[in-house]
Amino acid sequence: MKSNKDTNVGKRISEILERIHKEKPLIHNITNMVAMNDTANSILAIGALPIMAHAQEEVGEMVKAAGALLLNIGTLTPEQIESMIIAGQVANSLKIPVILDPVGAGATNLRTESALKLQEKVKINIVRGNFAEISILAGLKGNIKGVESVGSEKNSAEIACSLARKCNQVAIITGKKDIVTDGKMVVEIDNGSPMLRTITATGCMATSLIASFAAVCDDYVLASTGALVCFGLAGERAVLKAKGPGTFKSNLFDEIYNLNEEIISKGLKVNIYEL
Amino acid sequence: MKSNKDTNVGKRISEILERIHKEKPLIHNITNMVAMNDTANSILAIGALPIMAHAQEEVGEMVKAAGALLLNIGTLTPEQIESMIIAGQVANSLKIPVILDPVGAGATNLRTESALKLQEKVKINIVRGNFAEISILAGLKGNIKGVESVGSEKNSAEIACSLARKCNQVAIITGKKDIVTDGKMVVEIDNGSPMLRTITATGCMATSLIASFAAVCDDYVLASTGALVCFGLAGERAVLKAKGPGTFKSNLFDEIYNLNEEIISKGLKVNIYEL
Amino acid sequence: MKSNKDTNVGKRISEILERIHKEKPLIHNITNMVAMNDTANSILAIGALPIMAHAQEEVGEMVKAAGALLLNIGTLTPEQIESMIIAGQVANSLKIPVILDPVGAGATNLRTESALKLQEKVKINIVRGNFAEISILAGLKGNIKGVESVGSEKNSAEIACSLARKCNQVAIITGKKDIVTDGKMVVEIDNGSPMLRTITATGCMATSLIASFAAVCDDYVLASTGALVCFGLAGERAVLKAKGPGTFKSNLFDEIYNLNEEIISKGLKVNIYEL
Repeated sequence: MKSNKDTNVGKRISEILERIHKEKPLIHNITNMVAMNDTANSILAIGALPIMAHAQEEVGEMVKAAGALLLNIGTLTPEQIESMIIAGQVANSLKIPVILDPVGAGATNLRTESALKLQEKVKINIVRGNFAEISILAGLKGNIKGVESVGSEKNSAEIACSLARKCNQVAIITGKKDIVTDGKMVVEIDNGSPMLRTITATGCMATSLIASFAAVCDDYVLASTGALVCFGLAGERAVLKAKGPGTFKSNLFDEIYNLNEEIISKGLKVNIYEL
Repeated sequence: MKSNKDTNVGKRISEILERIHKEKPLIHNITNMVAMNDTANSILAIGALPIMAHAQEEVGEMVKAAGALLLNIGTLTPEQIESMIIAGQVANSLKIPVILDPVGAGATNLRTESALKLQEKVKINIVRGNFAEISILAGLKGNIKGVESVGSEKNSAEIACSLARKCNQVAIITGKKDIVTDGKMVVEIDNGSPMLRTITATGCMATSLIASFAAVCDDYVLASTGALVCFGLAGERAVLKAKGPGTFKSNLFDEIYNLNEEIISKGLKVNIYEL
Repeated sequence: MKSNKDTNVGKRISEILERIHKEKPLIHNITNMVAMNDTANSILAIGALPIMAHAQEEVGEMVKAAGALLLNIGTLTPEQIESMIIAGQVANSLKIPVILDPVGAGATNLRTESALKLQEKVKINIVRGNFAEISILAGLKGNIKGVESVGSEKNSAEIACSLARKCNQVAIITGKKDIVTDGKMVVEIDNGSPMLRTITATGCMATSLIASFAAVCDDYVLASTGALVCFGLAGERAVLKAKGPGTFKSNLFDEIYNLNEEIISKGLKVNIYEL
C-alpha cells in the first residue's frame, strides 16, 4: 500500500476480491468451537473455501492444499496448540501465509503462553486481536474480561507497530477503529457498526476474511485492509434492516456475499500514514 | 420473591436486566458443542459477556473473573467433567454462583453419574432441566429420549421441590409451564411458545440467561424467574413474524435484545405459591 | 422404489414424512463440530429428534434408543472414529440403520483410512458424499480441495453403483444432480439450488435428513430419495426471498419445516432407471 493520496485503494481491494472469487483459495482453520460455523460461512460468503481440520494426524497434510492457515485459540487445549505448531511449520516451509487470532491472550496464563509459543515456533505473517490481546503480545499490560478488551484503548497504532516490528509481521488491532500496520505504514479503518459487538465471533470472522484476502495477495497490509474494509462495510449495511442481533447476523452474511467494487469504493473509510 | 400479591415482579425483573446491561457480568460456560454459539449469542443479547473455556489448565483461572459459572453436560466427556469440577470448586470458594444444566441425565449412565457427581463435588446453586432430567436428579424415574423428556409430566412442582430441598438449591423444570423453586416457594411461569421446541439448544439458552441474571442478583428464585420470563416473552414475540424455525431463531435473538420494562411488565405470566 | 412410471413417488415420500412427524425417531449423531448445530436444527425441522453424543463411555448405550445412527468425519480424531465403531457395531446388532458421511475422504490419509475403516468394521447401510468422496471409497481417484469436490464429475451413476455393489449398501453422490443407487436401480434427483453451496454444512444437513427418513423406512433407496427431494425443494423455496446466504440459511430451516405433500408432489424432479 502507498500513501493516503492513493485514490485507488477501493479498486485494488475489489481486484483482490475478484481474485478470491476466481481462485477460490482453501482456507485451513484450526479454530475455536464457538466460531467454527460462522467462520466457515464467512469464508464461503467472501468466495473462498473453508476447511476445518485439527487432528495432529492430518493437519500437516491438509495445510499443503491451503492458500492460508488460520490459527485461533478461542477454545484452546494444549493438544490443539501442538496441532497448530505442526500445521504452522508446514505452512512456513511452503510459504503459505499464517494468520493468528490470539483470542483471550491475557485472560489466562494458558492463553498468553500459547499465543507467545505460537509466535515463537511458527512464523506468523499476520496477527489480529483486540487492544488487550495485541498489547499482551507486545509485552505490555492489557485489560481483558474473558475475551473482551476493557478499559482505555490509547495508542493503538503505537502498540500495534511495536508488535509488528518485534515480530516482523503485520499486526492488527480491531476495535472502534481498526489499525493495520507492518511497523512502518499505519492504516486506520473507520468502517463497521456497533452492532458487531452484539453477536459472538465477529473478531474471528474478521480474521477469516483477512486469511481469505492474504491467500491471494501477498501485500499483507493491503490484504488485511481490504478484508477489514469489506467486513466493516458489510456490518454497516447489515444493520440497516436489522431488528436486533439475530437478523443482523443473517444480514451480515448476505452483505459479505453481496460486496462489489461500487460498494467498496464508495464506502471505504481509510486513513494511511507512517509512524 | 414474595407472594402472588407482589405486583412489582415485572419492575424487579427489569431492574435486574438493567443491572446486567450496566455491569456486563462475565459468564463462564463449560458447555456442549451444539449450543456453544447460540448460548454465547443469548448471553450477548441479554447484555452480559460470554466466555467459553474448558481446558483443565485454564478453567480455574478463568472463572475467577466470572460473575457466574454455567456447567452443561450436553456433549460431555469424562475430561470435561473434571474441568467442570475444577472450575466449580474455585467458583464455590469465591461465592460465584454455579448453574448446572444436566442435559440428557437419565439417557445414559455417563450422563446420570456425571450430573450426580457434579452435584456431589460442587455446590450447585441453581439446576435447570426438563421434567425427566430433574426427576432423575431427584432420585425418581424419568422418561427421556435422547435429551427430550417424554411421557407424562405430572407433579412438576413436587419433584422440583424435592430436589431443591435435598440439595439445598434452586431447582427448575422447564416445559410447557416452567417451575422455579427453592423448596418452599414455587413460581410457575406460563410464558413461552411451542416454536421453542422446533430449534435446538433452547434449554441451554434459557440456562444461559439464568446464569446472566444470577450473576447480578443473589435472590436466585427471582433471578431465575426473571430469566425465564424474559426468554419466554422473547419466544412469544419472535413467533409473530416467523415463517418457521429458521426465521424464528433469528427473531429470538432480536427479541431477547429488545426486551424492556414495558414488555416484561405487560407480558409476564407468573403464579407464586408455597408448597 | 419402482420404475420411472411410478407416479406415486411424491405421495410415498409424503407418507414417510408423516411417519417421521408421528414417530419422532431419535437420530444419534457422531458428527463434526462445524455442522453440529445445523444438523440438529435440520433434524428438528423435518420432525425428528437429534442427539449428539460422542464419548466412548456412552455411545454404545445412547444408540440403543435411536432410530438411526449418523457418522460424519468432518472434524475427525482417531478417538472419535473409535466411538463411531463402538456405536456402529451396537447399531448393527440391533438392526438400526447406519449412515456414513465421509467428509473430506481423499483430502488426507487420516480421512480416507478412517472412512475405509468404518466401512470395514461397521455395516454401513447408506453412504452419502460428493463426487470425489464417493469415488475415493469406490477405489477410484477423486479430486478434492478440502471438503469440496473439484474437477470433472463424469459417470456419477456408474461410480455410485460400483461402491453400492462392492459394499452392498445404498450409495449417494450429491452434486448438481443427486444420484441414489443400491447398485441396480438408479434414482437421479434434480431438485436443489446453487445457493446451497454458499453456506457450510449443507451436505451434512442432507445426510441428517437421509438418516431421519431411514429411521422410519427400510426401503433405503426410497428413504434417501425422499430426503434429498425434500432438502432440494426446501433449497429451491428458500432462495426465493433470500438476499444472500444468511437469509437463505434462515429460510432453509423454515422451508424444511413447512414441507407438505402438495409441495413435494408438485416439485419433485426424479428420474428412475436401472443400470
